[in-house]
Amino acid sequence: MAELIFRTARREDVPAIVAMLLDDEVAASREPVAGASREPVEPTGEEVDAAYWAGFEAVDADPRNELIVAELDGEPVGTMQLTFIPGVSRRGAERMQIEAVRVRSDRRGDGIGRRMMAWAVEQARERGCRLVQLTTDKRRTDAHRFYAGLGFQASHEGMKLSL
Amino acid sequence: MAELIFRTARREDVPAIVAMLLDDEVAASREPVAGASREPVEPTGEEVDAAYWAGFEAVDADPRNELIVAELDGEPVGTMQLTFIPGVSRRGAERMQIEAVRVRSDRRGDGIGRRMMAWAVEQARERGCRLVQLTTDKRRTDAHRFYAGLGFQASHEGMKLSL
Repeated sequence: MAELIFRTARREDVPAIVAMLLDDEVAASREPVAGASREPVEPTGEEVDAAYWAGFEAVDADPRNELIVAELDGEPVGTMQLTFIPGVSRRGAERMQIEAVRVRSDRRGDGIGRRMMAWAVEQARERGCRLVQLTTDKRRTDAHRFYAGLGFQASHEGMKLSL
Repeated sequence: MAELIFRTARREDVPAIVAMLLDDEVAASREPVAGASREPVEPTGEEVDAAYWAGFEAVDADPRNELIVAELDGEPVGTMQLTFIPGVSRRGAERMQIEAVRVRSDRRGDGIGRRMMAWAVEQARERGCRLVQLTTDKRRTDAHRFYAGLGFQASHEGMKLSL
């Protein structure tokens, strides 16, 4: 396989990132819906709503958050967000949190996700983080096996409250 | 009960916060240990290791992280860390993450935890977060019932990789 390049997302990557985030059954099922019709209001492709741009700008401006693009042959094929969380617990350890991991649907099964996670864990080690954490929807049973295979332990309940 | 006051932690609170973090069976079981002896090396009370101070300074300096103390009659009786995570997913929503929630052992069962969480959720609403999230060790079955009673859904697996 051609070389996978990891880099910080740029503004022009936002449409591709949003498309990857939305091209996912579990995520689609929880995206906001309009009124009583329960019709999804998500834009796709290039039609990216202002709320997504604002989210990108907030991540881009924050030194403890990095939105990553995995690029193959000049095209984004994967994305993930890394958050570095300082803390007092666990002897003042910084932890890396990984959110919003996606591989483009036509490239799933090629080992891209595995290489993305290996790269993320390496970043955490280089930075001196003592813990890498993520939550994954309980319906994603394939993802649980995938993360367990990388050494993650499903030691916690991930609890969410939508406002 | 006297009024519970919520405020950002100050440097002089660190020993009390560390004591609350350590006064917990689950946390104690995963704290770092020294060499092959597996003896805990955690300080207690006022003997706070430099690593904890560094963790406090990092949290204190970060505008997206707030270490909170709940104070009753002038004494810290609870602590939690709030992290505000920007993101592109979920329509660019910011989420609040809650970590390191503790109530001082002699004040557990008084409803302090419930008031802490209600206050945290109110902060999230005021800030416009669309999601509050936390992970809780699977061994803390009481905590799961507590959070479920507050409306949290145990929808995710919380996966951790120690480095």
